[in-house]
Amino acid sequence: MRGAVIHGPGDIRFETVADAKIVKPTDAVIRTAATCVCGSDLWPYRGAEPTGRAHPMGHEYVGFVEEVGAEVTAVRPGQFVVGSFATSDNTCANCRNGFPSNCLDREFMSTCQAEYVRIPHAQGTLVATDDVPDEDLWPGLLAVSDVMGTGWWAADAAEVRPGSTAVVVGDGAVGLCAVIAAREAGAERIIAMSRHEPRQRLALAFGATDIVTERGEEGVARIKDMTGGIGADCVLECVGTAQSVQQALHSARPGGNVGLAGVPHEVAVDGQELFFSHVGVRGGPAPVRRYLPDLIQRVLDGRIDPGRVFDLALPLDQVAEGYRAMDERRAVKTLLIP
Amino acid sequence: MRGAVIHGPGDIRFETVADAKIVKPTDAVIRTAATCVCGSDLWPYRGAEPTGRAHPMGHEYVGFVEEVGAEVTAVRPGQFVVGSFATSDNTCANCRNGFPSNCLDREFMSTCQAEYVRIPHAQGTLVATDDVPDEDLWPGLLAVSDVMGTGWWAADAAEVRPGSTAVVVGDGAVGLCAVIAAREAGAERIIAMSRHEPRQRLALAFGATDIVTERGEEGVARIKDMTGGIGADCVLECVGTAQSVQQALHSARPGGNVGLAGVPHEVAVDGQELFFSHVGVRGGPAPVRRYLPDLIQRVLDGRIDPGRVFDLALPLDQVAEGYRAMDERRAVKTLLIP
Repeated sequence: MRGAVIHGPGDIRFETVADAKIVKPTDAVIRTAATCVCGSDLWPYRGAEPTGRAHPMGHEYVGFVEEVGAEVTAVRPGQFVVGSFATSDNTCANCRNGFPSNCLDREFMSTCQAEYVRIPHAQGTLVATDDVPDEDLWPGLLAVSDVMGTGWWAADAAEVRPGSTAVVVGDGAVGLCAVIAAREAGAERIIAMSRHEPRQRLALAFGATDIVTERGEEGVARIKDMTGGIGADCVLECVGTAQSVQQALHSARPGGNVGLAGVPHEVAVDGQELFFSHVGVRGGPAPVRRYLPDLIQRVLDGRIDPGRVFDLALPLDQVAEGYRAMDERRAVKTLLIP
Repeated sequence: MRGAVIHGPGDIRFETVADAKIVKPTDAVIRTAATCVCGSDLWPYRGAEPTGRAHPMGHEYVGFVEEVGAEVTAVRPGQFVVGSFATSDNTCANCRNGFPSNCLDREFMSTCQAEYVRIPHAQGTLVATDDVPDEDLWPGLLAVSDVMGTGWWAADAAEVRPGSTAVVVGDGAVGLCAVIAAREAGAERIIAMSRHEPRQRLALAFGATDIVTERGEEGVARIKDMTGGIGADCVLECVGTAQSVQQALHSARPGGNVGLAGVPHEVAVDGQELFFSHVGVRGGPAPVRRYLPDLIQRVLDGRIDPGRVFDLALPLDQVAEGYRAMDERRAVKTLLIP
């Protein structure tokens, strides 16, 4: 079979790789219906994370079950399935506590930009739809496997409630999905921080009530102006740089909450500053598996349409161009169809 | 009048100071019924914080209203009152959001180890009891003005719920009061980290179910052992050093919460480590004013007895000895009676 392999910064190749197959009785193999390129894939692509030796890429997927291991009874061949970028047994203490992305059996998916994918812990990881969904719903369901689930988590971790004022830092796919999540959670005011006109338009379409183009402490000052001088109830951090995390922490009001959805890179939080701010912080890899049944239903019902974050669709074998387009900010997110 | 003044590390003197008087129409002056020495007073006493030029000390107080400014109608001369170490107008946005210790008019009290005390923003800061309480309840009511309120906040910020497993890091007066708070919040298991026998005894009397004597990563390993390998639901951090904050963060389970009640000194939290832990963190100066009516009632009803943290009582004019005893760990907390 063929799949995407990173050979070094800027060097993605679609080439022959080892066939996906059942290794353990808890595995499944799926035939990929759709996959995509994640903002986090750009970290190694840009050399901001070491790539080490050549390895496959991709952690977002929807597909058809091809084969299951002996212990997998929850899904069967032929079914259309959605899974999380983090596998989970869905039975351990962390899963039961609502944090399947911290499952004691967790593996991070990393071979999904390929024709077939081996899914470890398939029993706890995959959710099958009742029927095969219309093809035009596949992008939305694919988004649920990561960016929509992560945006949902940003709103959950930031404790968005009906009536909240929410600020979304970051206008990438996760940030845009976080706008959807804040709207679904009932936020009264949703301020999207964005200086890119097409992304601003999508944020507004998804439910943002205000756009702020300033960044850093200027952005914070604008948020303070808009919130009676005290800051926002909820801040959804969807970037992960030192500047964006700082901006998020400073934008929340005393007693407000920051949800960290972007993986922090070279971020250190000053203890005394955090303390005197009275701001609550929680982050982590999104517990997508917990949200899957609900989010899948919202997509199938047409209540949310996170598939709109894909503004470029390519055949899977053009995956390298998909990375390039996102790296050069010509695309928010690239959909890949085998 | 006379009061305690710090002249430098280790140098507390009880001497003549300017009389407390009404400066603004929002002030009150109280005659001190009881005051005390706080663990945080030891930071400058030990030279761990610069003292600058000589200045008065003390931020905990109960007393009798002596005089009120023209705008103060909530309390009247003769009443017995309890207040917070942080003043609050009780009307601003932060107060309304439940964070009076981040009041837009906040002043930190700092002249309370004295015969009389000026209370700014008295209208929002002071709570009067219906009658003058029995003298044996004064220590408990005094504790409410800071250490009991701060322990309560530790449990609140760590989101202790009925059935929670709670770990209390720190066996000073705040940590001991945090045990009371965790018990009142319905924690099923309360693990007090302490290696001092008299403090262990008091922790057990206050409701601790387990004592752990190990510290640092050894302490974390013990907590993991006791919690099925994943960590505690709630961790109440009542110290504020780099080691204790680290220990607290590592002791919480994924999805658990750490409440920071100790003012952090030279603490930096690694963003990526916090992120992958899935632990929620909130800290700050305790919003004591929010808790006062409830906590005063619990003390008056005899439901809680935080006054037991005072294991040394001295006349106010022996305040220097009160500091020395705490510095040398001969006392948990020194009560001072004018």
